[in-house]
Amino acid sequence: MKNKIQVAFISFITFMLSINAQTNEKDSIMLRNIYTQALSEGKSYDWLHHICYNIGTRLSGSYGEIKMVDFLQTELKELGTNVSLQSVKVPRWVRGISEYAYIETSKDKITTVPILALGGSVATPATGIRASVVEFKSLEELQNADINKVVGKIVFLNGAMPENFINSFDAYKVCSSQRYSGAKVAVNKGAVAVIVRSLTHKIDDFPHTGVMSYDDLPKSRHIPAAAISTKGADLLSTLLSLNPDLQFYFKQNCKTLDDVQSSNVVAEIKGSEFPDEIITFGAHFDSWDVGHGAHDNGAGVSQSLEVIRIFKTLNYRPKRTIRVVFFANEENGIRGALKYAEESKQKKENHIFALESDAGGFSPRGFNLNGNTQKIDKIKSWANLFKPYNIHFFEKGHAGVDINPLKTDSNVLAGLFTDPQRYFDYHHSETDVFETVNKRELELGAATMTSLIYLVDKYGI
Amino acid sequence: MKNKIQVAFISFITFMLSINAQTNEKDSIMLRNIYTQALSEGKSYDWLHHICYNIGTRLSGSYGEIKMVDFLQTELKELGTNVSLQSVKVPRWVRGISEYAYIETSKDKITTVPILALGGSVATPATGIRASVVEFKSLEELQNADINKVVGKIVFLNGAMPENFINSFDAYKVCSSQRYSGAKVAVNKGAVAVIVRSLTHKIDDFPHTGVMSYDDLPKSRHIPAAAISTKGADLLSTLLSLNPDLQFYFKQNCKTLDDVQSSNVVAEIKGSEFPDEIITFGAHFDSWDVGHGAHDNGAGVSQSLEVIRIFKTLNYRPKRTIRVVFFANEENGIRGALKYAEESKQKKENHIFALESDAGGFSPRGFNLNGNTQKIDKIKSWANLFKPYNIHFFEKGHAGVDINPLKTDSNVLAGLFTDPQRYFDYHHSETDVFETVNKRELELGAATMTSLIYLVDKYGI
Repeated sequence: MKNKIQVAFISFITFMLSINAQTNEKDSIMLRNIYTQALSEGKSYDWLHHICYNIGTRLSGSYGEIKMVDFLQTELKELGTNVSLQSVKVPRWVRGISEYAYIETSKDKITTVPILALGGSVATPATGIRASVVEFKSLEELQNADINKVVGKIVFLNGAMPENFINSFDAYKVCSSQRYSGAKVAVNKGAVAVIVRSLTHKIDDFPHTGVMSYDDLPKSRHIPAAAISTKGADLLSTLLSLNPDLQFYFKQNCKTLDDVQSSNVVAEIKGSEFPDEIITFGAHFDSWDVGHGAHDNGAGVSQSLEVIRIFKTLNYRPKRTIRVVFFANEENGIRGALKYAEESKQKKENHIFALESDAGGFSPRGFNLNGNTQKIDKIKSWANLFKPYNIHFFEKGHAGVDINPLKTDSNVLAGLFTDPQRYFDYHHSETDVFETVNKRELELGAATMTSLIYLVDKYGI
Repeated sequence: MKNKIQVAFISFITFMLSINAQTNEKDSIMLRNIYTQALSEGKSYDWLHHICYNIGTRLSGSYGEIKMVDFLQTELKELGTNVSLQSVKVPRWVRGISEYAYIETSKDKITTVPILALGGSVATPATGIRASVVEFKSLEELQNADINKVVGKIVFLNGAMPENFINSFDAYKVCSSQRYSGAKVAVNKGAVAVIVRSLTHKIDDFPHTGVMSYDDLPKSRHIPAAAISTKGADLLSTLLSLNPDLQFYFKQNCKTLDDVQSSNVVAEIKGSEFPDEIITFGAHFDSWDVGHGAHDNGAGVSQSLEVIRIFKTLNYRPKRTIRVVFFANEENGIRGALKYAEESKQKKENHIFALESDAGGFSPRGFNLNGNTQKIDKIKSWANLFKPYNIHFFEKGHAGVDINPLKTDSNVLAGLFTDPQRYFDYHHSETDVFETVNKRELELGAATMTSLIYLVDKYGI
């Protein structure tokens, strides 16, 4: 009981502090105006439509990427900001013609299965690869396997994303190493190729690509790596249990070309009182080369443009410098983020706060926050302002890949946390298209970002 | 400041009460088991698939409705419960052959537009209706209109669901009277028919049907009423502004037949300690006659079956009587709900708590609660148990149409509150199909219902 009273007393003090938090009626009205702007006159959905249908996919080094940089410059100028490009060298990997794969259970019985080369993989020989298959349920199982079971075979990494996690991103983390490091581990056991189960809970015919790495392996030891759809993986696993000697054939002709020049796109509204305190927000503008890259990350891009539009429309003059950054090359290199952080460090810029949207255009729930407890508590003290918008989540967590290099001891990073159930249905696959984004969910996300930036600008961090 | 201290003191006391709430570690484990069951071994998605593809639509009096009652009986028996049917007379309205409509801007220029007769509407004459159109932006505007502007015309009620509400259900409420009462108001102004803008935020080609009423009008004064798709409505409005004399033609041959016999489907697990304290939960099993009725309300039905399955699988023996009710005829009569409440009253049953799922199979956020503050606070004191599942919403509100007649001074009604942005994209239209339901969102909803029922059973209300 004594403990309970102590806890209660702390709660009482915390509450006293929270009612003394600086927010006031004006802030409630400002948030109401921000949400109304986004929902009633929002442009994020139109921008997303343009990105998906007029630009299309935009993998680093592609023509789509060039069009995207042009589009961002144009729109940011249209919004009345000073735009600048920050030059970045990015990798250029190309898929080539479509992959082809089948399972051969006997001489005259083949069943085709959908695959997608993993980003960064080498091609198969021009005639493809045909070999027996050895299945593992995880990368660890492969690591512990007897080399004699693997030599000369195609390794099939069939780890399924666990279903019992509440947040699908946590389930993704459990399995993502099989995609990223599968080839390296497999070749060290003598495998000739690696086929990886797609990282999604959905059981369907769409393979999900994503980045892989050979790490420090010499080029001569690079083996082809591809993702297989979940239905294809289930079929292969079943057929293997019936006939362990079946053969798997696949062909892909992707390759890595020389690095090319790209750019981060940066624009800002100068702060009137504390111009040296920078609030950065944004999203990566590249995507994989399938589908539209609608949730990943057309959504984050259009929401970030919308933040600027809302501030301009509401005639908000920030006290601190509000800077939007569209990062190049998140998907297969993070070169844009590293370049931005490096130049920022050279210029001794003071990023007091950075916010990223890269969790899809789903209903916003709040923010993953990376910073010290005191600063996070300051943000939490604003939670009541967000209650009318069903924004309830302000927790410590990973904020985002692109802003991560900006972390200092004194700043706070935030990642827009959206409802996490549907993201991996679409992620890195042909199904990540405009039609899967709900207009209002996208708009609410933009309003939630704008609201937090407004509060950080007004009250500091 | 004095007020603030008072508020703080109340908060302190509330907190003291909340830390004395009875929940404990066992409850956390039970909730974890419930969610894991739903996500890892859940059957709700399979049941929903069966409902959508093997049963199909199930409007009162239809063959689908009969199949649905059979299905529910079979599944509930399979789950080891005692099932009973409660006889209910339900209306029987049939759509007949597909509707047809066009806008005629000049003698040789017609443009077809998608319409759906509203549920309960009369047919047009066999050759259809052709007349000029008068547009109103709301039912109120029509009510205040000069009768001379309306006589002999087709009334076009073009009220769009406002976009600035955070909860789409609130936006729906603003406009739903134009669908329900439009015909009655229009005929009193001398209109020959009424065309109503579909109640959705989505701009597309799918009209959304729903119930309408002529109220006390004699049959001779019933005029045909139909919903037009939002794109059709926008087109009609634009063309009218260019040419106020255009003609609108439509044809529908729906009709109301005699009432038929249907049933509520009821099953229960008897309470071991307080068998007379009844915890009811469930969903209406009827649907409109377009699409699959997936979100409305195949989702609620399959979630309610899943609650029973989870309790059975976890070998949970309730202290109180847990009863599932599948209600007939919510969509166009609420006869099932009224019948259930009436018989329950006759038997002097004590419903301490009732829970309904009828907000679609979207990510659960919490519950709308209808009851006195003290009892709602008791439920709120359990909120921390739900935090790991991102369930945060426990607010006073409308719980549900089917359980509403069970309200007493002492009980609590609860409606599963799901993320409300997408519901009206699909509601009552051809697009409310299985594929729009995410498996994990559906399952999380079932787990959230099960968890609250468990807590109410364990601690009373």
